[in-house]
Amino acid sequence: MTTAAKPSSRERLLEAAATLTYRDGVNIGVEALCKAAGVSKRSMYQLFESKDELLAASLEQRASAYVATLLPAAGDGRSPRERILHIFEQVESQSGEPGFQGCRYLAVQIELKDRNHPASRVAHRIKADLTAFFRTEAEAGGASDPDLLARQLSLVFDGASARAGIGADRLAGLVAPTVTTLLDAADMR
Amino acid sequence: MTTAAKPSSRERLLEAAATLTYRDGVNIGVEALCKAAGVSKRSMYQLFESKDELLAASLEQRASAYVATLLPAAGDGRSPRERILHIFEQVESQSGEPGFQGCRYLAVQIELKDRNHPASRVAHRIKADLTAFFRTEAEAGGASDPDLLARQLSLVFDGASARAGIGADRLAGLVAPTVTTLLDAADMR
Repeated sequence: MTTAAKPSSRERLLEAAATLTYRDGVNIGVEALCKAAGVSKRSMYQLFESKDELLAASLEQRASAYVATLLPAAGDGRSPRERILHIFEQVESQSGEPGFQGCRYLAVQIELKDRNHPASRVAHRIKADLTAFFRTEAEAGGASDPDLLARQLSLVFDGASARAGIGADRLAGLVAPTVTTLLDAADMR
Repeated sequence: MTTAAKPSSRERLLEAAATLTYRDGVNIGVEALCKAAGVSKRSMYQLFESKDELLAASLEQRASAYVATLLPAAGDGRSPRERILHIFEQVESQSGEPGFQGCRYLAVQIELKDRNHPASRVAHRIKADLTAFFRTEAEAGGASDPDLLARQLSLVFDGASARAGIGADRLAGLVAPTVTTLLDAADMR
């Protein structure tokens, strides 16, 4: 295709839900979402059972872009240690972008305060996938305790993005030495 | 005094705001807050300029109890390393309590998404006080880079409480080894 298809109502709603909940929080109203998407409430409810389902679908849809910007390419020839550090370089770099509010998958769970909400379930799974990535690399790099290292890296990931998101830390000179110390302590190659 | 004074309207509003925003989020309505406190909206607005101010005051009021449950007693004779580890033992222990949703001062900032909100300002200051405590202990313990260690400990604190709050990690076997590794790397006594 040489011309981009005009986004459908569904696509515009997903985009509006992702953008507005990230910027304003999960309590953004249906009216505001529909207005931003240029879609009637009636159409929205024909496409999504509820606002909760729209929110869950918008997180799901963002997941592949999220993974692509964060994770190194499969089989890029770098060592597990370098592949892990790559992720934290992305976090540090993203945290300097205007409008950065931390990891959307952490924020949505903190805001919803309901682990059974459909959007919490999606966010939980996407974050568990990141921990699984760390676990795989930790094992490939010969970490002394891959489970522990994967949990530690997930903790640093969330702590770093949360603190940058609220403006408590700018991350420069913090994330790389912290991750390096943990990788060294785990005897990671 | 041998008998506890009946809590005032102001105290009941502060308590309701602290409890309900922690449980349900910052978007809890004024009606719900007044109902829980048994105070009329008219009285609320005589005591607080706005819901935002009530929320800020409730965070402020909780700060001393928060510090007391988290921080070691001044001059308790323990080493700076032990005093730092004490805080993380508290985090791990608190994270197992029913209704735990992570650090309220982190959550409120993530939810409000507005660094100039009066409640964000209070929360930001209380968290900066914790980083300052880490900085003081790091220096007293001869850390090679007290600023870096204080930032690292704050990052672990927020990462740990956030991940426990959303149910992504139970923290057992995670926090103590992570903090110990960072303290060792900083040559902390």
